[in-house]
Amino acid sequence: MEDWGTVLMPGGVRDLLPGEARQKRELENSLLKLFRSWGYQEVVTPTFEFYEVLAPALEEMLHEQLYRFIDEEGRVIVLRPDMTTPIARLVSTRLRTEDFPLRFCYVANVFRRENHAGKQREFYQAGVELIGAAGAEADAEILGLMGEAFRLAGIKDFQITIGQVEVLKGLLEGCGFGNEEQEKAKTILNKKDFVAWEKLISDHRFSGEQREVLENLPHLQGGIEILDQVEGFLQSEDALAGLSRLRFVWEILTDYGLEDHVSFDLGFLRGLGYYTGIIFEGYAPGVGYPLCGGGRYDRLLEKFGFSCPATGFAINIERFLLAMKEEKIQVTPAMRVADYFIVGENFGEVAKKARQLREQGFVVEIEVSGRSPEEAVAYAAKKGVPHILVM
Amino acid sequence: MEDWGTVLMPGGVRDLLPGEARQKRELENSLLKLFRSWGYQEVVTPTFEFYEVLAPALEEMLHEQLYRFIDEEGRVIVLRPDMTTPIARLVSTRLRTEDFPLRFCYVANVFRRENHAGKQREFYQAGVELIGAAGAEADAEILGLMGEAFRLAGIKDFQITIGQVEVLKGLLEGCGFGNEEQEKAKTILNKKDFVAWEKLISDHRFSGEQREVLENLPHLQGGIEILDQVEGFLQSEDALAGLSRLRFVWEILTDYGLEDHVSFDLGFLRGLGYYTGIIFEGYAPGVGYPLCGGGRYDRLLEKFGFSCPATGFAINIERFLLAMKEEKIQVTPAMRVADYFIVGENFGEVAKKARQLREQGFVVEIEVSGRSPEEAVAYAAKKGVPHILVM
Repeated sequence: MEDWGTVLMPGGVRDLLPGEARQKRELENSLLKLFRSWGYQEVVTPTFEFYEVLAPALEEMLHEQLYRFIDEEGRVIVLRPDMTTPIARLVSTRLRTEDFPLRFCYVANVFRRENHAGKQREFYQAGVELIGAAGAEADAEILGLMGEAFRLAGIKDFQITIGQVEVLKGLLEGCGFGNEEQEKAKTILNKKDFVAWEKLISDHRFSGEQREVLENLPHLQGGIEILDQVEGFLQSEDALAGLSRLRFVWEILTDYGLEDHVSFDLGFLRGLGYYTGIIFEGYAPGVGYPLCGGGRYDRLLEKFGFSCPATGFAINIERFLLAMKEEKIQVTPAMRVADYFIVGENFGEVAKKARQLREQGFVVEIEVSGRSPEEAVAYAAKKGVPHILVM
Repeated sequence: MEDWGTVLMPGGVRDLLPGEARQKRELENSLLKLFRSWGYQEVVTPTFEFYEVLAPALEEMLHEQLYRFIDEEGRVIVLRPDMTTPIARLVSTRLRTEDFPLRFCYVANVFRRENHAGKQREFYQAGVELIGAAGAEADAEILGLMGEAFRLAGIKDFQITIGQVEVLKGLLEGCGFGNEEQEKAKTILNKKDFVAWEKLISDHRFSGEQREVLENLPHLQGGIEILDQVEGFLQSEDALAGLSRLRFVWEILTDYGLEDHVSFDLGFLRGLGYYTGIIFEGYAPGVGYPLCGGGRYDRLLEKFGFSCPATGFAINIERFLLAMKEEKIQVTPAMRVADYFIVGENFGEVAKKARQLREQGFVVEIEVSGRSPEEAVAYAAKKGVPHILVM
């Protein structure tokens, strides 16, 4: 039955039937309620925008994944590949005179032309952006909120991996890497290409300490103790400030009871030029990809002419639902049947009775197919409707 | 401030700021709850599909309004211009062995390349499809549900105009119109081009009765008495059956207390080849366009190889919100401020207190911008936060 998909639908997109659609809707609404309780307000942006407006601000890796088309005036249009960039555009153009910080959230679909077979191309995301706050308090708020999102969904064994691009930069600088070498190193780390990493290290002459740092870098994963390991090695103010921000965030996350769910990974990267400070991804058992992720992006809004710090995260709704399924969390009955089914000779009476019951909060289906009462009752019984009314 | 739009965004799409986005979300959720209580279950389909799959089934007028692009395999993709066609595709391909009728609903954005200045090109719709029920009971259910949607939104003075394509066909046949002349007449009626209509009548030789019918046709609007006026004139079984369906539907809508909100318009058309039976549109004071509309489309699913009757309607969410605004219905506070704002020296304590209050159901914003307590309090006071906590 599944081969209809390859024939009738483009790769990477799909239908959601009632059970899945309901679970998606319930999760999205719960997340919006959570975001709202932290002061985040929903915004909606268009599904497509001008390429020339969005493209200069987009993360490099997204460029080759854009769905583009030409509009009637001959301008290039793109389907939005994320929500952070449109919200940055919105704030930078229409809201720059507001009182900051601004807290915005969204539930939206985004589009990426992934070239791997089986990869999704239309994603459902829920996320938040905290715009206009530069401090570690803002980073801690965003991470704390992401932890709450996991809890709300009932995903118990989630893990959040935290990196820091300034700290990583400091480590590479400490090993004598110039700008160009840093970019090369970051590209390798971003791909987690350990063979290339070994080669990179062997290509250079390093001190014993430098070599030790570089060999360890892809494995600098763990709790707060990891930060102590590198502190003595870091020289630049930015890197040391980044480290102390990580300590601060750790403390707040401990206050939130998240210490068992958080670990540091100082060789961790998310893309290249986009993020400017703390970065993070969330994982759960049984799901091979990150379920959510985000970080600080202090240089994005200036691409729209408005210099302003910001941080945020996005949740992949379908991966969250997958993790919930792995944990056997039944959000809602998969395929809801009606509470009542009514059939009768006088349709007006049937409709009236249905109305009364709906007003009492029941889900009521009525016979509209012209079946005999016997046939109709058999249909409702087969569907498992608990109350069948023959009038 | 509004000229950013013409520069930065394609025509016909826009951002929704928090007040509007919240109202949209609340209305959508209320509608979904209403639809669910009538047994309709949400489905989700992809934002884009293959042109060759959808196009043969689309209403003629939508063809020239499609957003198309080419995917990496060189196939033509379209952004969905409605939800009825994708749901028909879904049912015809994946669900044809289910027990019918199926009741599906959706909340989704659709895309139409409108060429009129100021026209929307991305629409937010909520709607239902009742698939597999051919009878007037199904028509009555759909119209009754649309009436409930108006009531739920608090739009008091709504008006639903009902037409019937078989009755119209019968009237034209009774005036001696062949198939080709009928199409011509329907095109004129669909455009409400009364000058062309006068010309069409003057071009032909008709009996006195025929001429009277034709002259009246664009004005055959009113209550149940309108049906009596034409009954004697109709000859074909289909037309008389269509008329008796209208009478049945009128009775049920009277039972629903909708008689003051419903009128017939026997010269009314919605598009050309798509609808096959009863058709309708809903209006409200202060909004110059229909807010919602739909009808019976018994020939759509067979375009996907599955012959099956169906009926449904779609609501334009933004027009509904406009009508609610006209009636001064405040769905939710336009721009919600937090219940609490907390600032303090110890951020961990602030975060803890915020968590407690959020668990009690409050919306809590905390200071994350590194402002002094005085500045932070001034900010919160300006925003109108009722409870400001300095720890």
